Amino acid sequence: MELVRTADELAVRTAAARGRGEVVGLVPTMGALHDGHASLIATACAQCGFVVVSIFVNPLQFGPNEDFAHYPRRLEADLERAGEAGADLVFAPGVEELYPEPVHVTVHVGEPADILEGALRPGHFDGVATVLTRLFNLVGPARAYFGEKDYQQLVIVRDLVRELRLPAEIVNCPTLREADGLARSSRNAYLAPTERAVAPVLHRALVAGASAIAQGERDAAAVRRAMRAVAEAEQGVRVDYLEVADPERLRTLARVDGPVRLLGALRIGAVRLIDNLAAAPGVNP
Amino acid sequence: MELVRTADELAVRTAAARGRGEVVGLVPTMGALHDGHASLIATACAQCGFVVVSIFVNPLQFGPNEDFAHYPRRLEADLERAGEAGADLVFAPGVEELYPEPVHVTVHVGEPADILEGALRPGHFDGVATVLTRLFNLVGPARAYFGEKDYQQLVIVRDLVRELRLPAEIVNCPTLREADGLARSSRNAYLAPTERAVAPVLHRALVAGASAIAQGERDAAAVRRAMRAVAEAEQGVRVDYLEVADPERLRTLARVDGPVRLLGALRIGAVRLIDNLAAAPGVNP
Repeated sequence: MELVRTADELAVRTAAARGRGEVVGLVPTMGALHDGHASLIATACAQCGFVVVSIFVNPLQFGPNEDFAHYPRRLEADLERAGEAGADLVFAPGVEELYPEPVHVTVHVGEPADILEGALRPGHFDGVATVLTRLFNLVGPARAYFGEKDYQQLVIVRDLVRELRLPAEIVNCPTLREADGLARSSRNAYLAPTERAVAPVLHRALVAGASAIAQGERDAAAVRRAMRAVAEAEQGVRVDYLEVADPERLRTLARVDGPVRLLGALRIGAVRLIDNLAAAPGVNP
Repeated sequence: MELVRTADELAVRTAAARGRGEVVGLVPTMGALHDGHASLIATACAQCGFVVVSIFVNPLQFGPNEDFAHYPRRLEADLERAGEAGADLVFAPGVEELYPEPVHVTVHVGEPADILEGALRPGHFDGVATVLTRLFNLVGPARAYFGEKDYQQLVIVRDLVRELRLPAEIVNCPTLREADGLARSSRNAYLAPTERAVAPVLHRALVAGASAIAQGERDAAAVRRAMRAVAEAEQGVRVDYLEVADPERLRTLARVDGPVRLLGALRIGAVRLIDNLAAAPGVNP
């Protein structure tokens, strides 16, 4: 597996791969790779002859009071992880390489970028969309792989690719979880042991919501209350949101009439965790 | 020459051309093709094996009080024109084909999109950037051709391609003029005969500015006054702007210390005309 730092080198490698008739796959990451990323990379390797993993902590998607400076960066371990998972190339540009000058051009995403994560992190999804457009155009993947853990991001990435006509197929991969249900996330590394013990409550709350729906609850407000009751039973947990939304556009629902997506964000101490779950009447989680 | 209406058909044709090893060139237009467009197409044909002319009157780049509904549309004549100039394919999608649903994703361009044309046409350049990103991703051109007549657009398109890493080279082509100096433009068709007689005053004003600079004028305010005096000597002319700007970022200048760009916009009756000219100390226009 090769490490590439510049767009020019990357272009040479991807052109060569395409020249050999290989399908190029992209797994965009911010590094701090965990089993969830390894699973995305393995899926990409099963479907593509040449898999690029990008590692870039994108300043544009962090708010002024967020954890950009402290976001975990450990390239050596990431290279080993990506190589083990089967990646052919890691593209890890510096900030100056991907944003070499004042930024004049950004991508703006509308609904549903303004709700849920977007309401709490203004500009976050514009930053995601801008860096992904750059990365897609640099790598030119036929397929790109995203985890369902960032479900709202997945919806927005699908909008981005469809509307800007980026010539790539988006493949979504299921969320990988710890044995106790906690979704794998680079930010789990921030959790102190006592916080880590509490963290699975987010998944438990979502499961409680899905169970209520499975058992016939149609009132979305009642589902929200059921989820919140589970989350707030744990000490030191602050709920940012626990929501019942339509799975396509993430609009908040009043009634559950078919498949929905349950989405949640909690704060435990200084750490913020998000997760989500599919739910539908008659379907046990 | 072939007319193609859908993105799917277009993809088949451009993939075939690339498969034959041909360089794909794109000339994006809003139709109502004139000699200026023919010159762009001919330049593209000299440099590319497969030249696509897009014809699309983009609703996103028109303001609510602008001429979207009345913008000249004459596909039959355009097809003949494009074919004569050497185009291989005209891509003329309907609005539903290029914007098939509510638009969630747009491209936002900053400086210099907020001055000159942008100050008078809020959102105009965002609309231009959004449709061009879609067109570039659909056509996948190695080169795309733009006229210098829309000089501010050219600066912004260069930003767009460089920053979003669109894998295309931008080629700028000189403005084609009538014998009396009027820049070729689809909007010239709106001019009544008496207005047409007055219209060359825009080019004359810019030439007066360039002459003043050539002869040693260094005070940009004096150059602006010289241009304005020429324009306002004609009855029925309203000046939107006549500006002295740096040629790279279009920032307004106080002093002329090297090459500059002179940019102007006038209204004659209900018609709005724009034009521009390079100028430099010691260089006669």
